[in-house]
Amino acid sequence: MTSVVLSIGTELTRGEIANTNATWLCEELTLIGHEVTEAAVVPDDRADIKGSLTRLAAAHSVIVSTGGLGPTTDDITSECVAAVLGVPLECHAPSLEAIRVRMAKFGRTVTPSNAKQADFPRGATILPNPNGTAPGFAVSIGHCRAFFMPGVPSEMKPMFANHVAPDLRTLVTGGAYQVRLRTFGMPESAVNDRLAGIEAAHGVTIGYRAHFPEIEVKVLARAHTGAEAKRISMAAAEEVKSRLGDVVYGEGSVDFAESVGTLFRERSLTLAIAESCTGGLVAQLVTDHPGASEFFRGGIVAYDDSVKTAVLGVPPALVTTRGAVSTEVARAMAEGARRALGVDVALAVTGLAGPGGATTAKAIGDVHLAVATADGTTDRQLSFPGSRSQVRFLAAYAGLSLVRRVVLHGHGGDQ
Amino acid sequence: MTSVVLSIGTELTRGEIANTNATWLCEELTLIGHEVTEAAVVPDDRADIKGSLTRLAAAHSVIVSTGGLGPTTDDITSECVAAVLGVPLECHAPSLEAIRVRMAKFGRTVTPSNAKQADFPRGATILPNPNGTAPGFAVSIGHCRAFFMPGVPSEMKPMFANHVAPDLRTLVTGGAYQVRLRTFGMPESAVNDRLAGIEAAHGVTIGYRAHFPEIEVKVLARAHTGAEAKRISMAAAEEVKSRLGDVVYGEGSVDFAESVGTLFRERSLTLAIAESCTGGLVAQLVTDHPGASEFFRGGIVAYDDSVKTAVLGVPPALVTTRGAVSTEVARAMAEGARRALGVDVALAVTGLAGPGGATTAKAIGDVHLAVATADGTTDRQLSFPGSRSQVRFLAAYAGLSLVRRVVLHGHGGDQ
Repeated sequence: MTSVVLSIGTELTRGEIANTNATWLCEELTLIGHEVTEAAVVPDDRADIKGSLTRLAAAHSVIVSTGGLGPTTDDITSECVAAVLGVPLECHAPSLEAIRVRMAKFGRTVTPSNAKQADFPRGATILPNPNGTAPGFAVSIGHCRAFFMPGVPSEMKPMFANHVAPDLRTLVTGGAYQVRLRTFGMPESAVNDRLAGIEAAHGVTIGYRAHFPEIEVKVLARAHTGAEAKRISMAAAEEVKSRLGDVVYGEGSVDFAESVGTLFRERSLTLAIAESCTGGLVAQLVTDHPGASEFFRGGIVAYDDSVKTAVLGVPPALVTTRGAVSTEVARAMAEGARRALGVDVALAVTGLAGPGGATTAKAIGDVHLAVATADGTTDRQLSFPGSRSQVRFLAAYAGLSLVRRVVLHGHGGDQ
Repeated sequence: MTSVVLSIGTELTRGEIANTNATWLCEELTLIGHEVTEAAVVPDDRADIKGSLTRLAAAHSVIVSTGGLGPTTDDITSECVAAVLGVPLECHAPSLEAIRVRMAKFGRTVTPSNAKQADFPRGATILPNPNGTAPGFAVSIGHCRAFFMPGVPSEMKPMFANHVAPDLRTLVTGGAYQVRLRTFGMPESAVNDRLAGIEAAHGVTIGYRAHFPEIEVKVLARAHTGAEAKRISMAAAEEVKSRLGDVVYGEGSVDFAESVGTLFRERSLTLAIAESCTGGLVAQLVTDHPGASEFFRGGIVAYDDSVKTAVLGVPPALVTTRGAVSTEVARAMAEGARRALGVDVALAVTGLAGPGGATTAKAIGDVHLAVATADGTTDRQLSFPGSRSQVRFLAAYAGLSLVRRVVLHGHGGDQ
């Protein structure tokens, strides 16, 4: 029993848009316990669509398809499915009425192009779409169960969750469960080495997904029941956590800056940022999440040295003698930001992101960090490889990581 | 004569990583003038790979494949190609030597797993890989020309450009040319309406790619010669530009913040940012590009009102009477930033990104902008739909857009 994801659209075969739907559906099907042995993409072409449907239906038990359900003339999925089944298209009155109501809300009437979206192959099961005009549908092509959904992700994902996934779960025996652990601070190959043997010992599959510079570790278990799969997955995840230690900062979809924010909110601390080479990136990461105003006071993007001295109060002589990219200036920036913005904790980041600016004393990728609190200041000197954008992200994450360690372990307790 | 992109890897059919290679290759093949009528993804499984190769080689003239050339036991592409061709695998001595030299550089010796990467189907043409250990190869399967490359994008892309694309160009008659225009400030559907008729009049294909909140307009022409395709594409692009006016801000891969930076550098102006709801995003966008230090002095992330008053000098009474999200505060922030950082042009952004914080006086998505120069201050009030992240991006772009208009047209000349 194998499954296939079929994406329909010339914009995909021309490479005009990324096929994020297929990646998302492959992961969802895998999590439900289906084995996806093919993902196919075809253009909006009758022969290609009909040919693929016939071939895939003969070879697989399940087809999950997206695209080609829109109102324009190149949206021909329903017509092709009907042709493959040898049945006519028929208007589904409740769907037409739903389209009419939706159009009326925007002050528009139903055109023939819109009405076409209520035509389905005779005998199809309609999959409602509360988030758009085009409903989806399901049919059986021989022994294959086939689902057709719109290509707009915000319409497709809820339709899949509410009307496709429940059906797909009845087709698999046993269950699957996945724990997602979020890590930062160790390269993927090192994480991989550190976790050697866990797959075999626990009977799980460990996967990695990089959201640079974070790495997500996914621990997937399959078993006779969902409960058993959950038990196995969670036991293996515990071993992953104990082997990786502090590198694991959270679970699920929480990101690193969010986890630092949660720490500040739990402890009722306030934060300020003084940043140079990261140019606003640290503040942006921190404020990307709702509730940042509870702990984040503000930031100073001290890109030019004049801002370091005028706004943050870094002594001009320090910049001249030590250089803007130095431990001393990083410490003065953090202490200055803490004073100027009146916060509990201030982070400073100064460095050289490149591609220009290297000297004999400092190389591209050199970064100095400092975290100031009422108890003192901790500094750190690091050097990152990669492009300008990579150095900036690594510096921003390393800065937040130092903040986290100082808050958790105090000055000197963070090694 | 049709082409297909084949991606090999269980990490893809499980949805663990996005298939960016397929999107990139589909676009490259289209640009060369090939018609891609299928993109297929299969797992690291002998039956699936061999079955796909046999089927695709019978149906298409060209297969461009990635993945399955690594050193581990689940990398079986070469072996499957050899089986489909009915030929043995043979060691390619120069490739083995290149692997040995590469490993030696890292102080390692060649293991049997590494050596396997120098084994190719008898008769294959080797595609050198200066960026990694696994070379690629090309074979003919019946009448189909098939290319196999590693899945690592930084290795695959130069290999395609240097060793696959030249071959593929000889297979097409005629040429193709594409102009990419970058736009900001008009929704995709409105851009689409504005460009109605250009495709038919010029014989081009117009495609869109959204990099939220920017929209790229791609004007593709095919003709008997590359020169003719270029002429047609550029003529159509001129009409696109004249219909869209100021909405088109650049060509190629330049992004919006970069185009604003270029303007500042050309005019030797300096810039500072004072931002509240965007929380560092505007400064981050501006400093994302090399050379920002030539014009960008710095930014103040005035997230908390105390920073607006203490650092930017906004009168506390103004915040109390007008509210932090108001025209008056935006103007005072811009003028304060201009003074504090000593720049020619200062932008202020204050607004409500949500999801919390709405009052009877201000709704989520309300944003006030101001741009201050020596000649005066221009303000603008806007309201954006969408999530917190979308509001922040739209506000940041709208702010940079106002800066661009004030620099280009002066105060009052920007409507």
